[in-house]
Amino acid sequence: MKKFVDLNCDMGESFGRYKLGMDEDVIPYITSANVACGFHAGDPHVMNKTVMLAKKYGVSVGAHPGYPDLLGFGRRKMDVSPEEIKDYIVYQVGALKAFCEVHGVKLQHIKPHGALYNAAGKDPVLARAIAEAVYEVDKELIFLVLAGSEMEKAGKEVGLKTAREVFGDRNYREDGSLVPRSHPKAVLKDDDEVARRVVRMVTEGKVLTIEGKDIDVEVDSICVHGDTLGAINFIKRIRKDLQEKGVEIASLDKIFGKHA
Amino acid sequence: MKKFVDLNCDMGESFGRYKLGMDEDVIPYITSANVACGFHAGDPHVMNKTVMLAKKYGVSVGAHPGYPDLLGFGRRKMDVSPEEIKDYIVYQVGALKAFCEVHGVKLQHIKPHGALYNAAGKDPVLARAIAEAVYEVDKELIFLVLAGSEMEKAGKEVGLKTAREVFGDRNYREDGSLVPRSHPKAVLKDDDEVARRVVRMVTEGKVLTIEGKDIDVEVDSICVHGDTLGAINFIKRIRKDLQEKGVEIASLDKIFGKHA
Amino acid sequence: MKKFVDLNCDMGESFGRYKLGMDEDVIPYITSANVACGFHAGDPHVMNKTVMLAKKYGVSVGAHPGYPDLLGFGRRKMDVSPEEIKDYIVYQVGALKAFCEVHGVKLQHIKPHGALYNAAGKDPVLARAIAEAVYEVDKELIFLVLAGSEMEKAGKEVGLKTAREVFGDRNYREDGSLVPRSHPKAVLKDDDEVARRVVRMVTEGKVLTIEGKDIDVEVDSICVHGDTLGAINFIKRIRKDLQEKGVEIASLDKIFGKHA
Amino acid sequence: MKKFVDLNCDMGESFGRYKLGMDEDVIPYITSANVACGFHAGDPHVMNKTVMLAKKYGVSVGAHPGYPDLLGFGRRKMDVSPEEIKDYIVYQVGALKAFCEVHGVKLQHIKPHGALYNAAGKDPVLARAIAEAVYEVDKELIFLVLAGSEMEKAGKEVGLKTAREVFGDRNYREDGSLVPRSHPKAVLKDDDEVARRVVRMVTEGKVLTIEGKDIDVEVDSICVHGDTLGAINFIKRIRKDLQEKGVEIASLDKIFGKHA
Repeated sequence: MKKFVDLNCDMGESFGRYKLGMDEDVIPYITSANVACGFHAGDPHVMNKTVMLAKKYGVSVGAHPGYPDLLGFGRRKMDVSPEEIKDYIVYQVGALKAFCEVHGVKLQHIKPHGALYNAAGKDPVLARAIAEAVYEVDKELIFLVLAGSEMEKAGKEVGLKTAREVFGDRNYREDGSLVPRSHPKAVLKDDDEVARRVVRMVTEGKVLTIEGKDIDVEVDSICVHGDTLGAINFIKRIRKDLQEKGVEIASLDKIFGKHA
Repeated sequence: MKKFVDLNCDMGESFGRYKLGMDEDVIPYITSANVACGFHAGDPHVMNKTVMLAKKYGVSVGAHPGYPDLLGFGRRKMDVSPEEIKDYIVYQVGALKAFCEVHGVKLQHIKPHGALYNAAGKDPVLARAIAEAVYEVDKELIFLVLAGSEMEKAGKEVGLKTAREVFGDRNYREDGSLVPRSHPKAVLKDDDEVARRVVRMVTEGKVLTIEGKDIDVEVDSICVHGDTLGAINFIKRIRKDLQEKGVEIASLDKIFGKHA
Repeated sequence: MKKFVDLNCDMGESFGRYKLGMDEDVIPYITSANVACGFHAGDPHVMNKTVMLAKKYGVSVGAHPGYPDLLGFGRRKMDVSPEEIKDYIVYQVGALKAFCEVHGVKLQHIKPHGALYNAAGKDPVLARAIAEAVYEVDKELIFLVLAGSEMEKAGKEVGLKTAREVFGDRNYREDGSLVPRSHPKAVLKDDDEVARRVVRMVTEGKVLTIEGKDIDVEVDSICVHGDTLGAINFIKRIRKDLQEKGVEIASLDKIFGKHA
Repeated sequence: MKKFVDLNCDMGESFGRYKLGMDEDVIPYITSANVACGFHAGDPHVMNKTVMLAKKYGVSVGAHPGYPDLLGFGRRKMDVSPEEIKDYIVYQVGALKAFCEVHGVKLQHIKPHGALYNAAGKDPVLARAIAEAVYEVDKELIFLVLAGSEMEKAGKEVGLKTAREVFGDRNYREDGSLVPRSHPKAVLKDDDEVARRVVRMVTEGKVLTIEGKDIDVEVDSICVHGDTLGAINFIKRIRKDLQEKGVEIASLDKIFGKHA
């Protein structure tokens, strides 16, 4: 059976006069864009331009909501109640969706950002609150989450199409969780190794953990980065590696459309 | 022919721990709520609760977008470009619309707030940018504006249903503009006089200007206030006065539905 | 030996058009004002007016820095690094100190606010970062902290004059910590009981814990509230109760001046 | 008589994860740094690092306060009242001064930023409010302003040491004002021409206006830019050009010290 995989990348993280990321350069090589919604990054002007850019390149648009912490780029955990988070998600998704409607683009997915992504990956109550918010705003949205996380469970329980993403450059534990960044071996730096791991996760559904044991992993999307030329070159390379193994690079809505 | 008029009131202006307005007390007496969208006032939690409150009382919901100036409550003119304003409107309307969708409520209208309302009332380029933003987000939205202003013109040009509001407690000039607040006679303080003016504007389509001459005015909605008990009592009074003259109090969508 | 005690109260928590607290009503009855510095509450205009108000009533001024979270009123823990916190403290204390200099008032103390106060009370690294920031800005500032907390230790280690505050309306544990607000018996609601506890803490240096055992407590200041008429009446009452027991109500700088 | 001139440059304009400017590269070539204070740009962490960087290179530190508009980078005029502006200036100057105190550095000057600089250059009431705020915070601060502007007048009236800056790359009108950026000839792009103009302004006190007539100009400081390699090379060049004409590059406090 033919394999499909999506390549998702954070975009639209500029703010006012501040530019971040190489959105124009990376967009030809990805299939789904996670667009910041103004809480941890992004602003209305940037959101508008990012949706237009994605439309121009036929890349699917997703919301990338985060904590209300521009100063910390949404990377600092905040003790926000699940009820508050639910409202923050509705607000941010709605704001981005309006830009999609202006440009006649369908909002494809939502992926929580940064510290919120990490917190909701482990906390079932928070994960549930986010999944419910997404479902209530638009139950057709695809919920893009860490494979095997509490968000995956919550998304399925709530009835959302739930897409699982993996990180080629991060080490995994036997329980399927990511080795925390504080660990010296959290991040893999050898491009060849990362590429081999990505291909294997997609084609064989296996990843070698830091403990040295293979575990199963289900992959709908690979999280890639677009902030340096090196990162963009790496995306080109894994596109090629995957295609040579017969994997088709396709956006989440195409993948889920084929499942349906 | 039967006359109809809407009563619109700003709501949802609280923020975090800060409470503003007497939303629960005023809502039974109005027909349209202008809900702040988080830029000059309001936050996601407040927006959610305000939409629920409006739904409970059958009051129509509108977006009340403003300048990104919480510190100044959106009351300070900012030299924001029309392109930026357009994106700010899309963002804010979209955010509120998502809460409406969550609660199965239709977003009825949009009315710019504060200094943005004043600036767009006089500046055709700004007025046009706002009207276009509204049209692009959802062309069924009713554009609630100062009767006779540049916003009324822009709304009609763009093809929006454009509702004209009047202020019973403000003096008018012969050109139909409001006497600026800096003028000593800008605001009328005698409730009896204000009530008589409101009834006359609605039933006769006339208002006596500060220059002492009657001018024509077209009225779809009256802007009322809900921040004091006195203000709420005044709403009850003009409801009664209007009804005694055969005027029916109805929300904008009902009024425009009847026109259609 | 004569006993002295300070009464400290949070003030200047309004923001823009949003009013919070009854500052004008409570100020005659307190000796030290904790003034919000614009991160969790307060703004430059409010800070200026609050310093003027304190000066008018001869009340000592302190900085009340918090997390950068106006939306959450600084009551949500944020995973901010000690280095960042240090800079946030310097920034906020400096901003308030400038208003003090404008009005010829000496900045007396600093007391962390809300979730930052709670976090630093338990976390020695965070407590140390705050104490160092205070010392580096102005080593004459009095560090007002929870009696027995990590902040008390850090303040003394760093070489600050460290004032210990108690809460009459909160239950204590045997280790001197406050029973968390999530506990049903965290807050005492009977005014007579609270008043008796306050007087006993100040005059005998003892408090009965929730476990039913007396512990020692050292008291330089009592934290009081000024947000309701009831709260203000309670301040008047404990002032009287304390004075009847021979305790003198005095600001922290007077108390520490007497020690010196 | 020996001529002296200061080279001032905006610095510390990064925010959170967003980096702006090439502060580390430009600092060896300037004498005064205008440090953003967190309203239009900058944050406490950035301010701290910028003060440390200036100290390391012996560059004098100034406050660069702006409108509370991070989204617009302080470049959009806001209708803020003079009373509010006064408080915004006190707040921002105080915050930066605290970092100076932490590092044992004297705060040398203050220069308003962006749209506030432009507005106060023309509006005597706003200019006076700013000058008063500076004087009240610290009357020894040097007020760095556009030569010939309302700020120069206000600074002198209030009793501040007032330093006049010029722009080598901007065209002037006969009344000494800058040709607005909307004009096609507002900005000069030929480096040789700009360098010649700078040298002439400093050594002869003359500048050729856009109308083709020489006017007098008094120069204490030249505003330079540090955001591109080209800009930094240009600073090196005019340093050399000026020094060859016998002009000494010195910070404002040295220049004003020599005057005294």
